[in-house]
Amino acid sequence: MKSTIQTFAATVLKRDRLERVFPVLSWGRSYDAAQFTGDATAAVIVTIMLIPQSLAYALLAGLPAEVGLYASILPLVFYAIFGTSRALAVGPVAVVSLMTASALAPLQLSSIAEYTAAAAILAMLSGLMLVVMGVLRLGVVANFLSHPVIAGFITASGLLIATSQLKHILGVPAHGHTLPEILVSLWHEIGSANLATVAVGVIALAFLFWVRKGMAAFLVRRFGMSQKLAGTLGRIGPVFAVIGTTIGAWVLDLPGAGVAVVGAVPTGLPPLGVPTLDTSMMLALAGPAALISIIGYVESVSVAQTLAAKKRQRITPNQELIALGASNLSSAFSGGYPVTGGFARSVVNYDAGAETPAAGAFTAIGLLLAAMFLTPLLFFLPKATLAATIIVAVLSLVDLTILWRSWSYSRADFAAVSITILLTLLVGVEIGVATGVLVSLALFVWKTSRPHVAEVGQVPGSQHFRNIHRHKVITDPAVVTLRIDESLYFANARQMEDLILARVHRNRTEIKHVILMCSAVNEIDLSALESLEAINQRLTDMGVTMHLSEVKGPVMDRLRCSHFLDELSGKVFLSQYEAFETLRRSEDNKDSLAAE
Amino acid sequence: MKSTIQTFAATVLKRDRLERVFPVLSWGRSYDAAQFTGDATAAVIVTIMLIPQSLAYALLAGLPAEVGLYASILPLVFYAIFGTSRALAVGPVAVVSLMTASALAPLQLSSIAEYTAAAAILAMLSGLMLVVMGVLRLGVVANFLSHPVIAGFITASGLLIATSQLKHILGVPAHGHTLPEILVSLWHEIGSANLATVAVGVIALAFLFWVRKGMAAFLVRRFGMSQKLAGTLGRIGPVFAVIGTTIGAWVLDLPGAGVAVVGAVPTGLPPLGVPTLDTSMMLALAGPAALISIIGYVESVSVAQTLAAKKRQRITPNQELIALGASNLSSAFSGGYPVTGGFARSVVNYDAGAETPAAGAFTAIGLLLAAMFLTPLLFFLPKATLAATIIVAVLSLVDLTILWRSWSYSRADFAAVSITILLTLLVGVEIGVATGVLVSLALFVWKTSRPHVAEVGQVPGSQHFRNIHRHKVITDPAVVTLRIDESLYFANARQMEDLILARVHRNRTEIKHVILMCSAVNEIDLSALESLEAINQRLTDMGVTMHLSEVKGPVMDRLRCSHFLDELSGKVFLSQYEAFETLRRSEDNKDSLAAE
Repeated sequence: MKSTIQTFAATVLKRDRLERVFPVLSWGRSYDAAQFTGDATAAVIVTIMLIPQSLAYALLAGLPAEVGLYASILPLVFYAIFGTSRALAVGPVAVVSLMTASALAPLQLSSIAEYTAAAAILAMLSGLMLVVMGVLRLGVVANFLSHPVIAGFITASGLLIATSQLKHILGVPAHGHTLPEILVSLWHEIGSANLATVAVGVIALAFLFWVRKGMAAFLVRRFGMSQKLAGTLGRIGPVFAVIGTTIGAWVLDLPGAGVAVVGAVPTGLPPLGVPTLDTSMMLALAGPAALISIIGYVESVSVAQTLAAKKRQRITPNQELIALGASNLSSAFSGGYPVTGGFARSVVNYDAGAETPAAGAFTAIGLLLAAMFLTPLLFFLPKATLAATIIVAVLSLVDLTILWRSWSYSRADFAAVSITILLTLLVGVEIGVATGVLVSLALFVWKTSRPHVAEVGQVPGSQHFRNIHRHKVITDPAVVTLRIDESLYFANARQMEDLILARVHRNRTEIKHVILMCSAVNEIDLSALESLEAINQRLTDMGVTMHLSEVKGPVMDRLRCSHFLDELSGKVFLSQYEAFETLRRSEDNKDSLAAE
Repeated sequence: MKSTIQTFAATVLKRDRLERVFPVLSWGRSYDAAQFTGDATAAVIVTIMLIPQSLAYALLAGLPAEVGLYASILPLVFYAIFGTSRALAVGPVAVVSLMTASALAPLQLSSIAEYTAAAAILAMLSGLMLVVMGVLRLGVVANFLSHPVIAGFITASGLLIATSQLKHILGVPAHGHTLPEILVSLWHEIGSANLATVAVGVIALAFLFWVRKGMAAFLVRRFGMSQKLAGTLGRIGPVFAVIGTTIGAWVLDLPGAGVAVVGAVPTGLPPLGVPTLDTSMMLALAGPAALISIIGYVESVSVAQTLAAKKRQRITPNQELIALGASNLSSAFSGGYPVTGGFARSVVNYDAGAETPAAGAFTAIGLLLAAMFLTPLLFFLPKATLAATIIVAVLSLVDLTILWRSWSYSRADFAAVSITILLTLLVGVEIGVATGVLVSLALFVWKTSRPHVAEVGQVPGSQHFRNIHRHKVITDPAVVTLRIDESLYFANARQMEDLILARVHRNRTEIKHVILMCSAVNEIDLSALESLEAINQRLTDMGVTMHLSEVKGPVMDRLRCSHFLDELSGKVFLSQYEAFETLRRSEDNKDSLAAE
């Protein structure tokens, strides 16, 4: 009997742990027909949307178009096994494709085969890093990317990507990885623009903007279509542009008129195999791979969290690291390049009724079929059309309002945003985001090193104490209370010393007691402890007693490890009210004694 | 009449500003005979003490002995003009000499003349940096060197210096700038130690230790000497060792027995002139110069502040930067090397009765006379004696108790101390101190990124709220108060979201109100604002109202710049007590209404 219970408990525990590693086990066990219908419908729509997107993003990364398809097959299956989000759709995305191009450019590889192999190595490194971070539960590292830095980086990347695609719309060669380089390069080439290409590009752009802005309303108004169906058609709009311009290019023989087309794309299964491991290349790509991992993770998790919240579900950030890592490893081993969860496709997946990660696996089947049978149809697809789909997609990422929103809220946040945007545009994506993170950390440390200290008094009729300059409060000339608005640590300890002693100097004859109100002090480090000892000593020399009030539990535990409490000339009071009342009364007593 | 007042006011203002730049004007105007006597006495004692010290530290820096004398003349005069401390004695010091040696070693200069020129460039760069920092009022930068990092660095430097001097005691060549290098080098050479040199070194060491530990008591006990005089004799003890061993070496012809002596030191004024400016060398020395500047400044200011506090005087840290900068520039232009305020000599200066910085100028005259007339007498001074004075001096800097003091207080401080000590000993002084600073900053950021959140309740009979797990408090199941013990910023915003939502999830049916008590929140940045908006939104979805209490003035000002307060489902209460009372009463009312 007992052993049966033990076995059962062991099984449950084991199953629980297994389910944590393979979330597929938890939703897979109760998978039903209704869920299948939802997932299958979503998969069809996402497949249609992903075909042009995956080709376009591969070209943006400087890779052959089919690499985009390969990166949209196995990664989706592996995310379905390991992922915790029920709506996230992984695959090639714009920002990571740009970062891939930027990472591979300095390697100066001569052949496209070498370039493709390097992209696979990048995906492998990124996958390994993500898995290791997940196993070590280092998802918190992503928190060091502040919202302003992410917003600035995404906006600048969107601008860079859109600009870089103009060459395909103009049908001219252009190069460069920074905004000035690209613009100068385009300026030099603009004279040799191909008019047929420009026509295709402009028509595709106009159509896609209309699809995005006006089509849904038009379909509802004109054909009485349901809002939802019209919305979905709007999402897969790029497919119509692809089909239309491909047929147009074939019928009108546009390649003869100088319009670049995708051309022959190999047909067949993705090439399975381990990338060739070159140590020096791996070292060169390690830094970019780390940035791609973190940026990709942050983007993916924020999409996943947004969608999960809508259905009151929760995702597990550290498990997401493992899932994205597995996706990237599988991408590396099947001829792909770095992937992550994409915003637009995840929203489409969610809206189209995806119920479980199985929708991703079904999408993978769709793309596998596309890679095996559909690629010959893509021969006449103009590159200008793909560029137009990218431009329309990334312009929705550009949000320059973050500049004034951060300006009106805080100069530090504005500095982080603007430095990230400027450096990303002018120097490069890696420098841009890395500097953004360092600047925001430096500004935080700088702010905490210049602490705010408020002199407080009692709010009449309450036991509450507030700033004497902001509120009408009761004070006592003999008892000064200073509220320290910062954790005390080495960078601000000495200034705190100066501030407190300067305040006491100002009314040195009247002041008998100084209370340091520590409600906002979350830590006191060793440097600050020494400063407090020095303050205590100097105040004692001046005949002033020093007290503390509202010291928090964890801080008090720490102080008890030192001799400070023995040396403190005054007392530690639980509440500021108690401190003020006690000391004021003791002063009153002295005065009345003196009066007698 | 009016114009007279204006002229007078202008004069006063101008004088005030002039005095701030040239503090000599403020004390010089009232200089009197009593002050002169004090200053002159102190100057004589400090001169006697500085002669061997300045020679020894120059040798420690790898420079000719006379460079130490040159660095003790003009720098003292310039400090007297610009400095704000009345007791600080500047000149060559042990740690900065070690840092100079460490900065110049990688340049691999072939001749001693080039080496001396490079040391002057180092002093010039350091002087420029200090002046610029002073003008820009960047003295606060020094606050980023935490006490544990400084203590660890000084201790490790003391150990390194003492070890590096053993070669002079043994009379063997040895090289290296890290502890393992020096020890290995000594180990290989120990077989060829010169016995006569060892004898001089050991006698000098034994004498100097006795001078430091037992002589004062002996003189008082045996000769009834006053404590003060005995103390001063103890401080200038090294001079007796210098005189004794020099005479011994001359009489016994110790150079003939293989004892290294100082030899011919050029006689005359310090060589005035601008150092040859070599751009590549200046670039190579910029980093070390910055570290020397900051370390020198921190050491000097802490000595100056300690001595000023004893006489209730104050120093001006930013003016000290300018004064030290001027000292270093003058050192560079007169054949010297980097200098700063030294602890031991400043204490001697203070104890011997120095009243004003004029004592420093008088000391400079003493050393000038020494450089002009005394150097021939130094021919037979054994280098082992100088090494012994250095060893005894620096061992007083070594304080390994900082290791267990920091361990018992906080693991983060211990990590900073031990990393600084280890890297300084094993890799080098620059890496050691730079890593120490970075590690302490990283640990601080890491701590603030993992905030403490306490659930609080009302302390019975008061309006004070404390942690429910530490105190016996009154709570209400419908009103949960969470006190956030950290400023809210990007690195902890997302975790805060998780913590708060997880807490509400636990009792989701009972909880009607969540109060975030913000008494310890000193800042809310844009990322954290977005997290608060998300928390507010999700709590609203769950039917829970969110309130804030005790938001500080500066934080409230910031929130008013955003839409958050309009969107907040609940209210912002001035005090936590008011919030708790109001919400609890409203819940009681609802219950009683429901009961009716």
